Amino acid sequence: MAVAPPPVIVLVRPQLGENIGKAARAMLNFGLTELRLVAPRDGWPNPDAGPAAAGADMVLAEAQVFDSLAEAVADCTTIYATTVRKRGVMKPVLTPEAAARAVHAEAGRSAYIFGAERSGLETDDVALAHAIVTVPINPKFASLNLAQAVILLAYVWSKHAPSEAEGGVALASPPTVPLDPVAPHAELEVLIQHLVRDLDASGYFVPPERTEATLRTLRTALTKTGWSHNDIRMMHGVITSLGRKPRAR
Amino acid sequence: MAVAPPPVIVLVRPQLGENIGKAARAMLNFGLTELRLVAPRDGWPNPDAGPAAAGADMVLAEAQVFDSLAEAVADCTTIYATTVRKRGVMKPVLTPEAAARAVHAEAGRSAYIFGAERSGLETDDVALAHAIVTVPINPKFASLNLAQAVILLAYVWSKHAPSEAEGGVALASPPTVPLDPVAPHAELEVLIQHLVRDLDASGYFVPPERTEATLRTLRTALTKTGWSHNDIRMMHGVITSLGRKPRAR
Repeated sequence: MAVAPPPVIVLVRPQLGENIGKAARAMLNFGLTELRLVAPRDGWPNPDAGPAAAGADMVLAEAQVFDSLAEAVADCTTIYATTVRKRGVMKPVLTPEAAARAVHAEAGRSAYIFGAERSGLETDDVALAHAIVTVPINPKFASLNLAQAVILLAYVWSKHAPSEAEGGVALASPPTVPLDPVAPHAELEVLIQHLVRDLDASGYFVPPERTEATLRTLRTALTKTGWSHNDIRMMHGVITSLGRKPRAR
Repeated sequence: MAVAPPPVIVLVRPQLGENIGKAARAMLNFGLTELRLVAPRDGWPNPDAGPAAAGADMVLAEAQVFDSLAEAVADCTTIYATTVRKRGVMKPVLTPEAAARAVHAEAGRSAYIFGAERSGLETDDVALAHAIVTVPINPKFASLNLAQAVILLAYVWSKHAPSEAEGGVALASPPTVPLDPVAPHAELEVLIQHLVRDLDASGYFVPPERTEATLRTLRTALTKTGWSHNDIRMMHGVITSLGRKPRAR
C-alpha cells in the first residue's frame, strides 16, 4: 500500500510566536514535522516560539515562511481548511476523522490550514481549500485555541494512519504490558475452600440452614475478581493472618 | 439504553491555576463540566484560573476540592488513570477510544484522573485506578501538557457518545444496566480500610518496611473486583468474622 505523506500544517497569519511554538509541540507529539507559516505577524524566526515548543525545535527550525497561502500550499494536492464557523462558502464539511481518512488515501501531499488566533481563516483562505474540517464541538462553548485545534487534527490523523507494518507512522501504542494473567479457576477454588474453612471455624455460617446460599453469594463475589496467581497467593495470606491470630495482642 | 453520565475530570495536585483554567476550557468544548481538584498546590480558588478558562467560568465555579484522590472519586465506579509512562503497576492499559467506549457503557460515573504538570500521577494514584489510559504518541517526542491531555480525552469521549437518535431507539432495547451495579469507590475504600485495620491487628504487616508495598498490592487486587454494594457488605462480614474469633472453639 502506498503511504500518503503526512499532512503539512499551515498557520495563516499567526500572531504570537508562543502559539507557533505550541503548534509545533502539538504536531510533533503525533509525528507531524512540516510546518509552514503564511505572513506571521511578528516575522520569523520569533524568539517566543522556541520556549513554547518545549523541545520541538526541529519543527521550528525547518518551518518555511510564505507571503501567501497560495504559495504555501503550492505543492499540495488537497487542502483542508479548519474552522468551527459556518461560512458562506460552498465546500464539503468533514469531521476530523473523515479528513484523516482522505489524507491517508490521497496519493499527494495534503495540507491542514489554520487561521489566526482570534479571527480564524478568512473567506478567501477557505475559498482556496478543497474541503472544510470542523471539530464537532459544544455549540454553547466553542473555544478551541490554535494549538488545541492542531493537536486534535494531528491526533486524529495519527489514529487513522496505516499500521507500521503497512508502512505507516510508528507511534507508540499503549504498551502491551504483560498483565498478570488471570489465574486458572482451580486456584480460585482452593482459595474459596480456604476461606470457607476459616470462616466456618470462626462461626461465620449462622444460621446453618443459610450456609448454602451464603456460599453461593461468596463464590459469586469472588468469581468477579479476575485475580492472578500472585493475587490469590496474597489472599491466602490475608485469610490465614486474619484467622490465625486473636485480636488482642 | 441508559446513557452513562459524563466522566468527572480529576486533576491531582495541579500546580498552576492557569493550567486548571485551561483544563476547564478544554473540558467545556466537549461538554464536560464536572471538575475536581485534589490538593491544588496554590489553594482554591486561584485567580490565575479564570482568565485561562476563556469563558468556561461555570466549570471553575462548580469545581470541587478534595484532600485526597480517594475522596475525589468516592462516588465513581470506574477510575481511569491517564499516563504515558510505563509503571510497575499491573493494570489494563487502554487507548482513549477503548476507555471512551467503556465510560459510555458503564452504568455508574467514571473518572479520568490526571497528574501534576511535571511529575504526573504517582504510583499510589495509579494503584487506585481500574485501568490506565495512554494516548498513543510519538515515542521520540512525548510532550502532552495537562490541558492537551484533557482535551484529547474529552474529544474522544464526545466522539463515542451515543447519538440522540441512538438513545431514542435504544429505549425499546433491553436495559444494559447490570442488575447489581458496581459500588461507588468510597465503599471499596472503607472495605480496604477495614481489612487493613484487622490485618494490622493480626500482625500481617511484617516486616513493617514492606507495609506500603503490600498495601499497594492489596489495593490493586481489590480494585479488580467490580464488587457491588452487597458484595462489599458481605466482605465486611467476612473480615469481621475472621478477625473477631480465635480459631479454637
